[in-house]
Amino acid sequence: MDGSRTHYVDNTSEFSSAGLTIRQKEPKNLEAPFDRIDSYLTPTGLFYIRSHFPIPALDRASYRLKVDGAVKRPLTLSYDELRSMPSETRVATLECAGNSRVFLVPQVQGAQWELGAVSNAEWTGVPLRVLLERAGLLNDACEIVLEGADRGTPKEEPVPPEPISYAWSLPRAKAIRPEVLIAYQMNGRDLPRDHGFPVRAVVPGYYGMSSVKWLTRIQAVREPFHGYWNTSDYGYWASMDGMPVRRPLGEMQLKSEIARPRVYETVIPNRVYMVFGAAWAGETDVTEIAVSTDGGRTWAEAEFLDPVRRHAWRRWKFDWLTPEEPGQYTLLARAKDASGLMQPDRHDKNHGTYVINHPLPIEVFVDGSGGERL
Amino acid sequence: MDGSRTHYVDNTSEFSSAGLTIRQKEPKNLEAPFDRIDSYLTPTGLFYIRSHFPIPALDRASYRLKVDGAVKRPLTLSYDELRSMPSETRVATLECAGNSRVFLVPQVQGAQWELGAVSNAEWTGVPLRVLLERAGLLNDACEIVLEGADRGTPKEEPVPPEPISYAWSLPRAKAIRPEVLIAYQMNGRDLPRDHGFPVRAVVPGYYGMSSVKWLTRIQAVREPFHGYWNTSDYGYWASMDGMPVRRPLGEMQLKSEIARPRVYETVIPNRVYMVFGAAWAGETDVTEIAVSTDGGRTWAEAEFLDPVRRHAWRRWKFDWLTPEEPGQYTLLARAKDASGLMQPDRHDKNHGTYVINHPLPIEVFVDGSGGERL
Repeated sequence: MDGSRTHYVDNTSEFSSAGLTIRQKEPKNLEAPFDRIDSYLTPTGLFYIRSHFPIPALDRASYRLKVDGAVKRPLTLSYDELRSMPSETRVATLECAGNSRVFLVPQVQGAQWELGAVSNAEWTGVPLRVLLERAGLLNDACEIVLEGADRGTPKEEPVPPEPISYAWSLPRAKAIRPEVLIAYQMNGRDLPRDHGFPVRAVVPGYYGMSSVKWLTRIQAVREPFHGYWNTSDYGYWASMDGMPVRRPLGEMQLKSEIARPRVYETVIPNRVYMVFGAAWAGETDVTEIAVSTDGGRTWAEAEFLDPVRRHAWRRWKFDWLTPEEPGQYTLLARAKDASGLMQPDRHDKNHGTYVINHPLPIEVFVDGSGGERL
Repeated sequence: MDGSRTHYVDNTSEFSSAGLTIRQKEPKNLEAPFDRIDSYLTPTGLFYIRSHFPIPALDRASYRLKVDGAVKRPLTLSYDELRSMPSETRVATLECAGNSRVFLVPQVQGAQWELGAVSNAEWTGVPLRVLLERAGLLNDACEIVLEGADRGTPKEEPVPPEPISYAWSLPRAKAIRPEVLIAYQMNGRDLPRDHGFPVRAVVPGYYGMSSVKWLTRIQAVREPFHGYWNTSDYGYWASMDGMPVRRPLGEMQLKSEIARPRVYETVIPNRVYMVFGAAWAGETDVTEIAVSTDGGRTWAEAEFLDPVRRHAWRRWKFDWLTPEEPGQYTLLARAKDASGLMQPDRHDKNHGTYVINHPLPIEVFVDGSGGERL
């Protein structure tokens, strides 16, 4: 080792979650204040936190990452060894597959995320494919299982009888894409504990459940991995010749959200109000945004604030001349992707309590009599 | 058609379930009186009934069986066409995967089967492989999905959002075995409605969920079928490198049951009592039976009443000299298979609420003072 350990930028202790909304106290599930996010990159302290179990306490000195299974040369890497490998830095938006669940009526089980289980950061780490090449990934490996150090007894039926680790399996084709990182930094500083310290996966374009935190093992497997998380929990019902079949979630679906005005905000009549939000997609680009201020009857084009960058959100704005007539108005935003696909009109029940990517109604009040925004 | 339709032996109307125990009224789940079964073949009227949904009303004239998917020549067969094909008659024991669930402590969800969700019958029909050969099964078909006409909304999470048919997928290797029948007769007479009229699958060696009743479609598929029944419901947790992975149930596990004495029966002291029962296995043979009358401290060999016949149960008996000492005694039976494997000591929690194949304790009372058997 080269002694560089002492130079790492450590923000694991100074990290604060002030400003996040508690959706679950323990395990820690905290939502980003979506309405307060003006910057392209979400500040680390405002990035949403999603945990399945208590945060494991890992340290750099004893940390080991195993790469095994269907590989020629199983590896065990220390933290320093990982950090000495060629790294890349990429921006990626992560969204929890259950983001916006609170908009489902009737209410469903699970953390009641509103708009802020999505954030955008810059990640630094070793591409997963570099590790797989070094280990000599065998041709018959069909999936790569990412396993975390966090353990416990999960909730969704069917539940295995003993405590399990958090684990997620990626299709081989995705795992060897250059954007998939085994990351140790976030926004230029070492990962905080809540975000996977010392090492996590970052799988751009996939829902957050793929970006396994506190990563300790990368296992190449020869048959599809039907672990708890890929089956009982983060699954959906696809159709096979008219019959529903269970598949694991994967790619993030096209979505846009309005950050401002906030739900139930009161705005002043007959003024220009800058409606502001962000839009993102999975393995494609967001190319258009339309906004409706009349509950979806009419739509007008909004303006992007960020260029196209695969796997990262694009912020957008729309100047709304608020109505003279006081009352309740429903705002919606709807994105279109590079293939011309639009967000769906409503939530697809085959996705269960996940993939809430229809235009979310933001109800606001127009009122000049005193309830106005400061 | 040859007009032979009028000659079919029809027992669909005369069938009676008198003597069965209700475990669920609707859908119909009735248990065989295991203590009353002396014959090798279970009389049709005493065969256990397992249904997931209301019994569909099918008739011979309009019945069609589709064979499609990964085949060269998709088929649609009428009832008469199926009956005109070469047939075979085989004895097979069917056991519900949840049989003996009532012995689990603490109690678990599901029909509270005691000993009688197992029965043995003679089945007549067309081997599935004959149908698959006729349709030209393609090399890349990996499973065969058997779909019934019974439909509804099932209960185990995760549940698909719309009603579904009952369906079960067999591995290709099992589906093309000669013992797997597309059956239209049971014990020499046409299937009763409760047992799948007009046509059902019979998959000897596999738990009952494979023997799809009211069969209307046989679909060859190119990727493993992860339908509701193979995943949410009839699954178990296998282990893959220390991590639990969900797999569909399949082969019946080695098991023996004591039919007499019954649970909580009172027997007379110091007499020879003929303990009687049956034992079965999946893809192997039962070769030994031991009985304990002291809760498992000591074991003695029992005697088979039936020869070895793959996929069918073997009845057995054991002459017990009842103790002079009044009190409560626990009887157990334990089978061994051709490979030397014995029944496990206890239920494996990885099987959830299924595969209850440990020796089941039959508690009886020895009492000479009047509470004796007639």
